[in-house]
Amino acid sequence: MKKIEEYIRSIPNFPEEGIIFRDITSVLEDADGLHLAIDSMQAMLKDVEFDLLLGPESRGFIFGVPIAYNMHKPFIPVRKKGKLPCETISTEYALEYGTATIEMHKDAIKEGQRVVIIDDLMATGGTIEAIIKLVERLGGIVVKAVFLIELEGLNGRDKLEGYEVDSVIKYPGK
Amino acid sequence: MKKIEEYIRSIPNFPEEGIIFRDITSVLEDADGLHLAIDSMQAMLKDVEFDLLLGPESRGFIFGVPIAYNMHKPFIPVRKKGKLPCETISTEYALEYGTATIEMHKDAIKEGQRVVIIDDLMATGGTIEAIIKLVERLGGIVVKAVFLIELEGLNGRDKLEGYEVDSVIKYPGK
Repeated sequence: MKKIEEYIRSIPNFPEEGIIFRDITSVLEDADGLHLAIDSMQAMLKDVEFDLLLGPESRGFIFGVPIAYNMHKPFIPVRKKGKLPCETISTEYALEYGTATIEMHKDAIKEGQRVVIIDDLMATGGTIEAIIKLVERLGGIVVKAVFLIELEGLNGRDKLEGYEVDSVIKYPGK
Repeated sequence: MKKIEEYIRSIPNFPEEGIIFRDITSVLEDADGLHLAIDSMQAMLKDVEFDLLLGPESRGFIFGVPIAYNMHKPFIPVRKKGKLPCETISTEYALEYGTATIEMHKDAIKEGQRVVIIDDLMATGGTIEAIIKLVERLGGIVVKAVFLIELEGLNGRDKLEGYEVDSVIKYPGK
């Protein structure tokens, strides 16, 4: 049986010179790879008590929704500016390349609810830090963040001290 | 038990005057709603022989990946311009509001493979028509397209003559 790492395709110099892009489409495009990725992430939640699963547009949707389905939990989409139709809260943050604004429906999280955040990749930790801010402004409690891939050389965990963070595959570089 | 229609939130005048926006976040944010939506779409594929499931960014990811997981099929993401790292083919098309370019990896589909397309909503049919074009340029065969919601008043099916199209919820209006 292939290991999950073997399904990841690494692309040098994308989207810019010096970056090794870790491509997850090669995972998804293999039925066994897709299963293994989702099962491996889900295994990191087996002893976690939580109310909601939350994932950012758009690759957080890819892994978040199947796990929500399998564990019978609600899924809260965090979206780019202007996509959500009801009353939202938002925050701007620095991306690995550029900046972005993300939004969440105000009624998506109730005071005291325990929230798990799912995304494909942790780089600098900017996205996850912004999401935690939104969750906490709504009174939610972030109990864990789970990633398929972590780029350890970008030190995302420095931004997330005090939070439980887990990732399936860790690359030492950027 | 609630019916799937009851989980949809309808927002008048979003994103512009005169449009009733059918919000799926209210479906996802309820664990039963999320299950019912995915199971209802998946039921439309039970007698369909296919090799690949394909969904457009980003709401096609929401419903496509869990169905791919459940049916043990590969999932092919169709993405907005510039997001896919390997060699792509692309096409421009008219959206309900504006225009867009979508891309697919060239190696995602092999000649003769049978493809199912999943998305949350069929409006004018522009997105799905563009996706069919890409699939066929790569030699794939579109065997079915499944939507959670269809806005019948926008006549999307007129663009899709000769293709099998199914949707869980049909709204007569726009």
